[in-house]
Amino acid sequence: MQFHHHGYVSGDPRIQDAAGVGVDRPDELPETVDVLIVGTGPAGVITAAQLSQFPDITTRIVERREDRLPIGQADGIQARSVETFQAFGFADRVINEAYVISEMAFWRPDPADPSRIARTAVAEDDPTGISEFPHLIVNQARILDYFTEVMAESPTRMKPDYGYEFVGLEIAPEGDHPVTATLQCMSGPGAGTTRTVRAKYVVGCDGARSRVRESIGRKLVGDRANHAWGVMDILAVTDFPDIRTKCAIQSGSGGNILLIPREGGFLFRMYVDLGVVAPEDAKRVRQTSIEEIITKAQQILHPYTLEVKDVCWSSVYEVGHRVTDKFDDVPAAETGLRSPRVFIAGDACHTHSAKAGQGMNVSMQDGFNLGWKLAHVLTGLSPESLLDTYSAERQTIAQNLIDFDKEWSTMMAMKPEEFDSPTELEDFYVRTAEFPAGFMTRYRPSMITGETTHQELATGFPIGKRFHSFPVVRVAEGNPIHLGHHARADGRWRIYAFADSDRSALDQWAEWMVTSPDSPLLAFTPEGSDPDSVFDVKVIHQQAHRDVDLGTVPGAFLPKVGPFGLVGYEKVFASDPKRDIFEARGVSRNGAVVVVRPDQYVAHVLPLEEPALLSAFFADIMQQPASALLGAS
Amino acid sequence: MQFHHHGYVSGDPRIQDAAGVGVDRPDELPETVDVLIVGTGPAGVITAAQLSQFPDITTRIVERREDRLPIGQADGIQARSVETFQAFGFADRVINEAYVISEMAFWRPDPADPSRIARTAVAEDDPTGISEFPHLIVNQARILDYFTEVMAESPTRMKPDYGYEFVGLEIAPEGDHPVTATLQCMSGPGAGTTRTVRAKYVVGCDGARSRVRESIGRKLVGDRANHAWGVMDILAVTDFPDIRTKCAIQSGSGGNILLIPREGGFLFRMYVDLGVVAPEDAKRVRQTSIEEIITKAQQILHPYTLEVKDVCWSSVYEVGHRVTDKFDDVPAAETGLRSPRVFIAGDACHTHSAKAGQGMNVSMQDGFNLGWKLAHVLTGLSPESLLDTYSAERQTIAQNLIDFDKEWSTMMAMKPEEFDSPTELEDFYVRTAEFPAGFMTRYRPSMITGETTHQELATGFPIGKRFHSFPVVRVAEGNPIHLGHHARADGRWRIYAFADSDRSALDQWAEWMVTSPDSPLLAFTPEGSDPDSVFDVKVIHQQAHRDVDLGTVPGAFLPKVGPFGLVGYEKVFASDPKRDIFEARGVSRNGAVVVVRPDQYVAHVLPLEEPALLSAFFADIMQQPASALLGAS
Repeated sequence: MQFHHHGYVSGDPRIQDAAGVGVDRPDELPETVDVLIVGTGPAGVITAAQLSQFPDITTRIVERREDRLPIGQADGIQARSVETFQAFGFADRVINEAYVISEMAFWRPDPADPSRIARTAVAEDDPTGISEFPHLIVNQARILDYFTEVMAESPTRMKPDYGYEFVGLEIAPEGDHPVTATLQCMSGPGAGTTRTVRAKYVVGCDGARSRVRESIGRKLVGDRANHAWGVMDILAVTDFPDIRTKCAIQSGSGGNILLIPREGGFLFRMYVDLGVVAPEDAKRVRQTSIEEIITKAQQILHPYTLEVKDVCWSSVYEVGHRVTDKFDDVPAAETGLRSPRVFIAGDACHTHSAKAGQGMNVSMQDGFNLGWKLAHVLTGLSPESLLDTYSAERQTIAQNLIDFDKEWSTMMAMKPEEFDSPTELEDFYVRTAEFPAGFMTRYRPSMITGETTHQELATGFPIGKRFHSFPVVRVAEGNPIHLGHHARADGRWRIYAFADSDRSALDQWAEWMVTSPDSPLLAFTPEGSDPDSVFDVKVIHQQAHRDVDLGTVPGAFLPKVGPFGLVGYEKVFASDPKRDIFEARGVSRNGAVVVVRPDQYVAHVLPLEEPALLSAFFADIMQQPASALLGAS
Repeated sequence: MQFHHHGYVSGDPRIQDAAGVGVDRPDELPETVDVLIVGTGPAGVITAAQLSQFPDITTRIVERREDRLPIGQADGIQARSVETFQAFGFADRVINEAYVISEMAFWRPDPADPSRIARTAVAEDDPTGISEFPHLIVNQARILDYFTEVMAESPTRMKPDYGYEFVGLEIAPEGDHPVTATLQCMSGPGAGTTRTVRAKYVVGCDGARSRVRESIGRKLVGDRANHAWGVMDILAVTDFPDIRTKCAIQSGSGGNILLIPREGGFLFRMYVDLGVVAPEDAKRVRQTSIEEIITKAQQILHPYTLEVKDVCWSSVYEVGHRVTDKFDDVPAAETGLRSPRVFIAGDACHTHSAKAGQGMNVSMQDGFNLGWKLAHVLTGLSPESLLDTYSAERQTIAQNLIDFDKEWSTMMAMKPEEFDSPTELEDFYVRTAEFPAGFMTRYRPSMITGETTHQELATGFPIGKRFHSFPVVRVAEGNPIHLGHHARADGRWRIYAFADSDRSALDQWAEWMVTSPDSPLLAFTPEGSDPDSVFDVKVIHQQAHRDVDLGTVPGAFLPKVGPFGLVGYEKVFASDPKRDIFEARGVSRNGAVVVVRPDQYVAHVLPLEEPALLSAFFADIMQQPASALLGAS
């Protein structure tokens, strides 16, 4: 965490100074905004939290409810999401209060007595160390709280505008604020009245029954038949020995349960399968009582007992596998001809089972993908064409998710005798673990994702996949640091320069970065802002930290920042001889340049010797900003 | 973190429900209190934070200042303190915002040109892994903030009472609230007026010029001559390459600097030695200007430059090595005959140089030592004689500190030519590292610290030293857990039962614990409170977690808690085969019982086979509580 560079910070350094629109921010929803977000679910709050970091962007997020979500809904947090929380500054706190999944148990009918269940396998959750962060279970409400806190502590001092329901919108062909959204006030003296807000962009994060989606004429397309299950968060006494372990339980009677232990050490969630229902039966299924669900769970757990003491939340939940063909308002045929003005994200775009613990996670990555793009277009850093990449990138991911979840949820609902082999379920779970952990996302080449021409220079940083952090040592004081954790969700591009062994190529590259008119650093950093305000340029040496002389490190990696022109020492790293990042991530001893997007995905891998390729890459993405409207550094 | 066992907690689980005196806590300082703490420095706030966990104890902490400390003063946080923060729930957050010391550099006159300084050695800060926590630098103000937050989120909803200066006190020979303290109101309409507060106990944490100390007739005794130095927290530009490393710098001119990099990546502190001053010169030294200090620093750093951009805080600080002979109001001759009513802690008891980074740390351990003792006496769990152990334990520690600091600060002030060998300073630093890290404290046998008769059963948990945590695996779900981190600063005793290999002795011991009338668990746990409300009893198996059948674990380790009688699964652990705690901590394969005090010190090591020894140990410490006045579980 870096602070004090604008003078001494006496209080909590996590609370940024109010700036720009955050100074005297009006409590009332204004007439015009830059971005209007509809819905405070996971997709909405992460988009808002990202935009809140930009002092000169007015973002408001409206919510039909009158207050925070108190309970219920999603609870699965994949490691990819925890990496994201790290960038927003609250990963540690979530981990501390969450349930950490380190293994999953599989229970099936005991072959000796199929009326009883017996444990057949235990699978480690992340045996290959796909992330340095764990897989968590914690109620969605808490995640929303953390993002809301990020907003409140941002320069723009954002708060959700509760009590407004989205009614509809219209898009004008031109104008500064071409989208007019109509909202209904849900409470207070104005309850029942409607009002309009004019926005440059609207983001619909309003769930599976999204009215924003409707208003741009898009539909969820997919299976008609839905899978139903009863879900309950309960406090109970049981002698089932794996009650604190995530379990897939299949009973001889064909019933099955997905057991999810929850945060706090006592609570757990059970998904009790209610089978596939045709649309005409949906109404009946939804009336399944909590008593019926508990009875079914008790039958499945036999011979173990389940004495429910308190039902904290329950629901009968049924949803099909559906996805929208495009995540913005521009018809496919017109893409590139006009710029999108309305986006949808999260459940508004994709609905599926809860069984793979994906919903909240994919939704947050939708918002993380969109947030920085909106910010860079609104601040003038990037052309509007950047916005087309949102739907292009995320619709594919949603389609993959639907395909995966169909397979997994079908298997979870199968009867024991329907499997080809007794270990088919756990085999599938282990084999496909990277997907539900959130790491199968690989964006295809586009204006923001390079071709793999030079991928061999850093094979452990696949272009299009998330930057997989690794420990290094900070030269200035010898501390072990996770290289990726220094990157915060501040909308900046990261450029990691891995040094060649004698640093000859590195030194030339670094000189080019701070002197060449082609350097993106010089071309696109607004005048008057800190040299690292758009591009955060770091160096990683092959040598151990005591063998790197800070006095010889190029100035490109020691920028002078803030009103006092203080030297930032936190961009100069060395390999840890005990666990060498060059070795672990397959980085060439001739060095490499790894470009990482503001949402943590690897955008490009390039040679140190050809800086012109870096110029060419950014030429499409960036433009000379009209003014210095940039966010906090 | 355990929660939800009293029903679903929707918000931040760190915020406990208000209870007892925290329900409708009066904003105004009441007429009578259980404990009055004077001063919101490190000793004061930790005592308050500990007492705040007990719903039925009224504690108020008064402070002369009108608001929180904004800046300045101590900044060194030894690993022992970070362990303590872990127990209070904020270690991670402090670590994230602090400067982490991983090494210290030593600079001396360059032998080739003594007018220049040159780096002569670098010493790792904790090469032996004496703690799993790091050594930190962060401003004292932030530590006070965190403890204040702990108070506010406790059941008693404590807040400091700002704007009251302690004037004096009188102790009546008897009565419910025998101490009458007089306070002067410093602000508001009543400014200048005095008022009294009657208390059962008063704790003076009011610094080196403590009036509470004066009021009980105690004095700081020690050196008359003081050592002076200029200290400044500055933002500056320099080409000194170790500016982000802790350094001891000795120049050829005889001047020397202790350089302490600070949190946030830019700020640093310099202690510039101003030499030993006789009392008659003190006034002159205190007038040393900041310009003089900067000039002196620049001379010492030659040939490196130092361009100061902003002086955030500075002071000329001179203090001798002094200690009080006893830390309470009972004369030595009367100890045991009457109970102490007034205590002093922190700088009120011991003053010394800042050079070893000890002050704040030792002060916090004073308060941590005292807090639970006051709570246990006030709730009726323990007899008043427990309070005598405070002075007995902490005065010795203070004396050791003074002795160590005399040696270290004398060396730090020596001229290069005065050393016997060029490496004498760094040799001393490395050799004595355990002391400044906070781990040399070893309480002597007393009513709360057992004899070492059975120490060989667990050689890695020395009786009287702090419980040195180690990773284990929680059986219920296979998560790696640091055994000691489950212990919170909630005033409970911890009893760790290390199982024998076939668990025969363990099972008998566990049965005894829940059935024998001699069991401390049965004898001293108040009726109607959770079975783990006084003694938190855990088991550690020698086997790997998947080889422990939760169904066979004795009920002593699976207590039923809360209104629903839910099973607590977080007390059953297994050794991690990759790093066996039995091996690492020298625990006998025949098992052992390790008793740990509420302030994390090992109180006793006993054999499983002789539970009567456990009864005997607690017989002196505990008593049948008059009522269930216990704190949160």
